[in-house]
Order: sequence, then structure tokens, then C-alpha cells
Amino acid sequence: MRRANLSAIVRELHARGPLSRSDLVTRTGLTRSAIRGLIGELVLGGLVTEERAARLGTPGRPSPLVRVSPDGAVVLAIEIEVESLAVAIAGLGGRILESERVDRPREHVAFEDTISDIAALVATVRARRPADDPLVGVGVAVVGVVRRSDGFVSMAPNLGWRDVPLGDRLARALDLRVPISVANEADLGALAELRRGAARGHDDVIFLSGEVGVGGGLIVDGKPLKGAAGYAGEVGHMTVDPGGAPCRCGSVGCWETQVGGGMLLELAGQSRDSGRPGIEAVLRDAADGSAAALSALDHVGRWLGVGLASLVNMLDPRLVVLGGLFGRIHQYVIGPLTNELDLRALPASRALVEVVPASLGADASLLGASELAFEPLLADPAAWLASRGAVRELVSA
Amino acid sequence: MRRANLSAIVRELHARGPLSRSDLVTRTGLTRSAIRGLIGELVLGGLVTEERAARLGTPGRPSPLVRVSPDGAVVLAIEIEVESLAVAIAGLGGRILESERVDRPREHVAFEDTISDIAALVATVRARRPADDPLVGVGVAVVGVVRRSDGFVSMAPNLGWRDVPLGDRLARALDLRVPISVANEADLGALAELRRGAARGHDDVIFLSGEVGVGGGLIVDGKPLKGAAGYAGEVGHMTVDPGGAPCRCGSVGCWETQVGGGMLLELAGQSRDSGRPGIEAVLRDAADGSAAALSALDHVGRWLGVGLASLVNMLDPRLVVLGGLFGRIHQYVIGPLTNELDLRALPASRALVEVVPASLGADASLLGASELAFEPLLADPAAWLASRGAVRELVSA
Repeated sequence: MRRANLSAIVRELHARGPLSRSDLVTRTGLTRSAIRGLIGELVLGGLVTEERAARLGTPGRPSPLVRVSPDGAVVLAIEIEVESLAVAIAGLGGRILESERVDRPREHVAFEDTISDIAALVATVRARRPADDPLVGVGVAVVGVVRRSDGFVSMAPNLGWRDVPLGDRLARALDLRVPISVANEADLGALAELRRGAARGHDDVIFLSGEVGVGGGLIVDGKPLKGAAGYAGEVGHMTVDPGGAPCRCGSVGCWETQVGGGMLLELAGQSRDSGRPGIEAVLRDAADGSAAALSALDHVGRWLGVGLASLVNMLDPRLVVLGGLFGRIHQYVIGPLTNELDLRALPASRALVEVVPASLGADASLLGASELAFEPLLADPAAWLASRGAVRELVSA
Repeated sequence: MRRANLSAIVRELHARGPLSRSDLVTRTGLTRSAIRGLIGELVLGGLVTEERAARLGTPGRPSPLVRVSPDGAVVLAIEIEVESLAVAIAGLGGRILESERVDRPREHVAFEDTISDIAALVATVRARRPADDPLVGVGVAVVGVVRRSDGFVSMAPNLGWRDVPLGDRLARALDLRVPISVANEADLGALAELRRGAARGHDDVIFLSGEVGVGGGLIVDGKPLKGAAGYAGEVGHMTVDPGGAPCRCGSVGCWETQVGGGMLLELAGQSRDSGRPGIEAVLRDAADGSAAALSALDHVGRWLGVGLASLVNMLDPRLVVLGGLFGRIHQYVIGPLTNELDLRALPASRALVEVVPASLGADASLLGASELAFEPLLADPAAWLASRGAVRELVSA
């Protein structure tokens, strides 16, 4: 019971930011005296702080304001994309305390190279933090098909990976003695947008993440749709054009062959492999009125609408969140996308759905990875408090 | 507490068939004496009967066998397809006690005609049952996009319906003073296959129902995927061929334009509107080795595989159940379907999924409709027992 109550309090503070004791009473259904005792434990364990609230003109004693200590427990968040790697340390409450992102050339995506690049980045970022940083977990976002149970990546077509034990290999390379969880990059972007971004408060959401490939994070009834083994959401490999171009996954005419970054770059007259700088160039050209750039964006917008209509008919969501590349080009694609959606989605489902850009920008997946890494602590803060108590006793003995 | 416990017992017996008191203790976690008391109430209310079990060679007193009384509570199940209407009375436990199905010509699908045809069928079927039949609800399966809350059909392209208040209109026409629930035909087929058919025991299932159109019932994590307003699962209107044939829904290149009954009939040299007799003719021709029939079935099989691969990538299911027309042609389509699935589905998801024909045959959706209609009774048998008690007191007074 105490475990569940501690968990409820820490979850609320982590997700919503500072709350008064009265807010916590309302949100958790616990009694005022139970809340007081549990907060005492959490303050002692360094997970939350309490401060006197400003009097707001309401009568009675002001309820003290409780907030998480961002330094009280931290996680390492790692993002593996085709064209960049990123590492961050995030504090309880979801704030990124330190981070580092490096672009990398397209050819440099071999599995072992990636592992050593990440280890180096992690060392760089951790060096900026205190030696006794209270690290509780590692979360990894990767653009691939991931088995959740052990972080095994069965396929990451745009990285050229097949059957690699990413979770185990990173655990060995980082040697951090905390749990490592790995999930698909778009799934984690969806999780972050749901908890802290554009999809907050929504129960039925399609998060679409565009980079070189296309990832999807599907939220159904407030929960991530994982599928039988955690592989669900691979919307980039929906066939939209059966006689179309070959896809890196081995199929033909997948959605990402029409709307992925490569197609946009090629149609806009850039090299398919020119990456982020290429995309920036396309956006500059479009702003200058370049016909090629605008027509390329129109193409991507139309095909985004074709695929989205299928997803809307299938899932009946309230919200579609465009993330990554699709968030950056939102203003250019929303017109043609809307036209196709109006034509192809069933009117009843179409009427309910809104299409918006992601609000967390490039950090969405990193924030999602940190949510994943915090999960064990959020589920059972009591275990963490006990381990810290043991450490304090050892130190004072 | 008593309500929840009565509900648990009735649900078990309804879903699994006869169980001993010991089985019920194991399955519900209730004590033996609690079970005895609750079963006493249910026997008195006419919902279950108890009989002495045969001694099975195990020592001790044999545990009495408890079973639902099929006549103790019945529902009316209605199925509205393009080419047929069906009405059944089903008893607790899911047995169909009486039923009637009528084929109808394709042009005869106007909304008001359908309502009066159904009312006539219901009268026919009810006339075969006792006048005091304990009717507890009506469930309706319809090939359209349905708002679950009130049975409003926003669109049924293959019936030519748009924005019709099916639930309300049927309630008035039938005048039965019991709740009416309406849902999509494929969703209900999926529910029935999940509870009583090929998908029993599975948590992640795609049920695909083929007739004139294509319906989908998606089971995610053991529960039907309904979407924000209950419109989810309209997989027939997934775009598989953006430059393809116009669909009745207003879009172009929908999956059902390639795999629906009309395409099969046309390619096999039958009239698009020849309905069930036409399909029977195609199957006879195929059995006789007709090249046209076999090539038409091959076409449908290939396109089934194209669309299924997208669904498998998106949902990561364990099982695909082919129902309706697709169940009948399973042996002919499974080859080309499997080829496309192997080519187009991501290997990790592909490896987990099996494609099987539905096991409940033509009655799947009717059985699903009866499950829907039994839901209020299953959720709260105590309310029903109380109303029956009141009736008995009135009669004896």
C-alpha cells in the first residue's frame, strides 16, 4: 500500500510539475495526513522538496508547494537515428540537465561503431555532472524494430542493422549497473508528446515521426499500442503503392519510399544523402519560392495524406501529431495532406481528427527515452528510498 | 461485492460452458461457501441449473456441475448485410435457439425497407418461442460505420446509407422495451471468434471479414480496438492502390475495390451483383479447374496479402482470422496471400503471425451480436434477478 501511494505521488509530481499538498490530496485520493507522512519520506530520500506557497488571497493556511528535485534522481537518455546520435541526462520531472547531439555521415552507422560513439558521448556528458549523480536507469530510442523485453533490434533497415542485441551490448559497453530499456524512436516520441507535449490529455493519437524513414507511435485508449511482441507501429512499411519503389526493408512501395527524407531531398534537387543540411536547404529554397522545393514538399504532403487516411480509417484517432522532419515541414505539407485526408478518410472519422505539429521538437524521442528510463523508479520509489537509506547508513557508519 | 461476484460466475459459465463448483472456486477466487450461496440465487432466478456430477474415479464427494439455462435469459441478434438479413434468438451460453436468414436482391437495401424486413423477420422468429420468453436485449451487426453510444450509422457505403439512426429506428419498430446495441459487423465477428471461435485464447488478433465490402475487427491486448468514437477497424478503406478504382466510400483505390466480392465475381466472369449464388458458382468453377476462376481467386489472394502485410506491420498480431467470404475461399487464397505477406511484412512481425480461416462460419457476426446483447446481463445479473423476483411476487400476489 505504501509503495503504491509513494508511486502515485511521485508520478503526479513528475508528470505535472509542482503541486500543493491539497492538489495531491485531490489527485491521489489519499488523506492529508498520509500525504504529509509520505512526502516526509520522499524529502528525506532527496526525491522532492517542499516550500511554503505564496498566499493567493484564499482564506486559511496556504498549502505548501511540493516539487520533485531534478537532481534527486537522473536518467541517461540515448537516441540513435541514421544521421545523428544524441545523449542526455534528464532529471526527475523530465528536465534535460545536460545533452549532446552529434551529426554523423550516412555511411557511419555500423553497429559496433555506433556502440563506441555512444560510449564516448555518454562519457562526455557524464563528465559534466557530479561524480555521485544518482543515476537510476538508461533509456534508448532507436529507429528500428525492437523487442521490448531485452532491447534486441531485429531490423533497422535505414541503419542497415539486422538482429543485433542492442540492449545487451550497450549494457556491457556502458557498464553502469542500472537497468537499460530500449524502444522504437517513434514510440518514444509519441510517449513524450502524450505526457508533455502536443498530445497531452488525448487518449487516441497517431504520432508520425519522419527522418530518413518513417516511424509511428500509436496511442490507443491512453496506452501505447505495442502488439504481441512490441513491434507494432511500423507504419512506414505500410504499402501505399504496390508497384512503386523498392524499400530498404525488402518490400516495394512502402509509405516511407514516398514521404521519407530521401524522396523529399531528391525531388527538391538535393542529394538523397545530404541529411539535415540538405533538409535545411530545401526549407530555405521553399521560403524563397523555389518551384522544385515547393513541388517536392507538395508531393510529400499528398502522400502523407494518402497514408494518414488509411490510419485514420483503421484507428479512429482524435489527434495526429507530426514529429521530426514532418514537424519541421508542417506548414508546407498541411494543405495537400488535408486535401487527401478529406478525399480518402471516412467522413465520420475524418470529422473527429486534427493534425498538429509536435511541440517538443527534436528532443521528443530523447524525452521519451528518459520517461522509459524513469519507469522503474516511478513504479516503486520505495525500493529506491530503501537503497539510498542503506547507502546513507554505510557512509555514516 | 455480491453484484461483482454474481457477474464473475455468470460470465464464466456463459463463456466456458458447464463447470463444477470446484472449477468456479479456482476461476473466480471466491470461497466454496460464497459460490454455493450465489449459485443458489442464480438457480432461483432461473439463470443456471445444477446437476450431480458423475464420479470420475477421484476420491471425495463429486462437485456438482453448474451450467447456464439457455432458456433462462435470451437475446435477439440481428445481422444486416448487403445481400442478406438474419435474425436469431440466442440463449445464455451462446447457443442459437431459433434463427432465420433471408437473401435479398442487391437493389433492395433502402433504410426503411430494411427496418420493415427486420421487423417481419423478428416477428417470425419470436413466434416460434414461448410468449413469456425472458428477452434481455437486442444486438445488431451492420456492415457500416457505427457510433457505439446510440447505434447511429454515419456511413454504410455498400448499403447506400448515410447518417441513419439505426438504433433508434429499430427500437421504435420492434418496441421490445429492452436495450438495443448496434456495432459493426466485422467487429462483432471478431468478438465472437475471440470468445468462441478460432481466436479463443489470443490477445492480438486481426479479424478480416469479406462480403461485398471488407470489414475489420481488431483485437489489441485482448480488447476490441474501438477508437475515439467507435469507428476504428475500417480496414476495407485502407488505400492500397492510390490510382486505382473508385470506391463507394468516395475515395479511390481502397482495399475492398481489389478484394471485395464484386472484384472476385467480375474477374471470374460472373456479374458483380450475382451475390452468394455467384460466389458459389466461382467456387464450383475453381474446383473444376476453371482458369478464370482460379486467376480471380489468385488476384484476391495477392491483394489480401498486400493489405494484410500493412496491418501486420502496424499492429504486430499473433493471429489473422479470415471470415465471411474470405473464410470460404481460404484454401484458394492462402498461397498467394502468404507470398505477399512474406515479401512485404517485416520479418520479426511476420514470424509471429498465423493466418487461419474463421471457425464460426456464417453465424460469426450473429453470435457476436448476441454477445453484445448479453453484456448488460453479464455485467450485472443481480439487477436481472431483482426484476425477476419482482415479477414473481406480482404473479403470486
